[in-house]
Amino acid sequence: MAAVAFLGLGVMGGPMAGHLAKAGHDTRVYNRTAARAEAWAKANNGKAFTDISEAVRGADVVCACVSADADVRAVFEAARPAMGKGAVFVDHSTASAKLARELAAAAAAAGFGFLDAPVSGGQAGAEAGRLTVMIGGAATDVSNAEPVLKAYAANVTHVGPAGAGQLAKMVNQICIAGVVQGLAEGLHFAQAADLDVSAVIAAISKGAAQSWQMENRWKTMDEGRFDFGFAVDLMRKDLGLVLDEARANGARVPVAALVDQFYAEIQAMGGRRWDTSSLIARLNRQA
Amino acid sequence: MAAVAFLGLGVMGGPMAGHLAKAGHDTRVYNRTAARAEAWAKANNGKAFTDISEAVRGADVVCACVSADADVRAVFEAARPAMGKGAVFVDHSTASAKLARELAAAAAAAGFGFLDAPVSGGQAGAEAGRLTVMIGGAATDVSNAEPVLKAYAANVTHVGPAGAGQLAKMVNQICIAGVVQGLAEGLHFAQAADLDVSAVIAAISKGAAQSWQMENRWKTMDEGRFDFGFAVDLMRKDLGLVLDEARANGARVPVAALVDQFYAEIQAMGGRRWDTSSLIARLNRQA
Repeated sequence: MAAVAFLGLGVMGGPMAGHLAKAGHDTRVYNRTAARAEAWAKANNGKAFTDISEAVRGADVVCACVSADADVRAVFEAARPAMGKGAVFVDHSTASAKLARELAAAAAAAGFGFLDAPVSGGQAGAEAGRLTVMIGGAATDVSNAEPVLKAYAANVTHVGPAGAGQLAKMVNQICIAGVVQGLAEGLHFAQAADLDVSAVIAAISKGAAQSWQMENRWKTMDEGRFDFGFAVDLMRKDLGLVLDEARANGARVPVAALVDQFYAEIQAMGGRRWDTSSLIARLNRQA
Repeated sequence: MAAVAFLGLGVMGGPMAGHLAKAGHDTRVYNRTAARAEAWAKANNGKAFTDISEAVRGADVVCACVSADADVRAVFEAARPAMGKGAVFVDHSTASAKLARELAAAAAAAGFGFLDAPVSGGQAGAEAGRLTVMIGGAATDVSNAEPVLKAYAANVTHVGPAGAGQLAKMVNQICIAGVVQGLAEGLHFAQAADLDVSAVIAAISKGAAQSWQMENRWKTMDEGRFDFGFAVDLMRKDLGLVLDEARANGARVPVAALVDQFYAEIQAMGGRRWDTSSLIARLNRQA
């Protein structure tokens, strides 16, 4: 078992750190709001710290799960002086590939490893310990971190060098944007055509239109309930990363850009915390 | 076993009729180009007719698989005088819901049944006898036709009244338009970002971005090979039906409309017979 520090105990990080403790790792946690770390430590029989460097000192693997680039940079900088030689800093946040490359270089210069390791699977996946982790970085660091990550991951894939994990997460979000919008239009059309939606789904969900989103979200979308997953505000953050990166690498992502604008409309409709399937609410909206 | 007539022996109808004969039905075929019906009859030990009414006379179930509304109307009108009382005309073509309602009324007035029963599963599904059939029409007609359709269908779903089969097929195509475009943008982005695409797919294909299209088309899309399914010309025909219907029922289908325009660009690139996954070719095109 390893000594592990976990920084950021949000809806993802809290259960992820819980799986580490349950697996028997010596788990030290830090959270910006200290009360949450205290509560976590009590519930999980672990150790809470109010100072990142104290949480990190002596850890073999340091995991972070925070929000955006600025937060990642802040926890990384706070951890850096306390990172041991050969330790690995694993960033589970969804952030830019540019930042991942920068922090990987800074870590290498200081004698420890850095992995950009965004996750998919959402809160349900974190709670079940069934996340998918896509990793950019050096193979030896991946090998060292993987036994720890297995505590909460069903799949760990080393995609490529520093930044590749973030880029793979962007590919994931681009695909989802198209799938969910197509599904939203299909269900909205079915409603407008007065079809029995469950019969339509029964007819089409085994063939070329099939998707995870269709299987898992058609019913709640049809019912107009949007409390089942990843929030619109977070999806807009991720699509912002996609559009920045596409501007840099020259990729054309017209529907991802359009769907990002649709989500902006949903935010304006009051749907900042609705899940991503709320694209149908925008179509169903009365003029 | 039933007496069945099959009208239209194209890449779908040919193998579908073959499965009927193989299942032991008395199968009589007609094709606009008579030589194709003769060849089919020789290969399948069946009977070819050069006149639709002769093929249809005495049949319990008459199946048609032709191209567009005008073709459906033509074969229906030719069959009508020869249809027996209580027989069922099953139209497997993808056509408008309006035509389906009109022909269902005409059939009812003449004492026989009409089902709009478009299929999905493509040429491969037809050859394997594993098509999905989505049906609009009266329940008794569905019950009468279903034992015959099982010869080439893995799934037969009665979606609703006349027209509902065509509308369900439209929902299918709307969903596919979003899925394929999202996947095309994701793969194009992955290429632009210089990622190992197979590693990315390994990382994301079990989660919320998963789709039939991702599983079955990512590799050929990544390689720029577009000879694996439903042709762009046919998809444009189907999206035309979608857009006409949406104009009538008030549904909003912005991405389906956009993807239809993208397919128009692919036609202009020489891709009329490429498969629908060729959306990535448009993104990868050099300026």
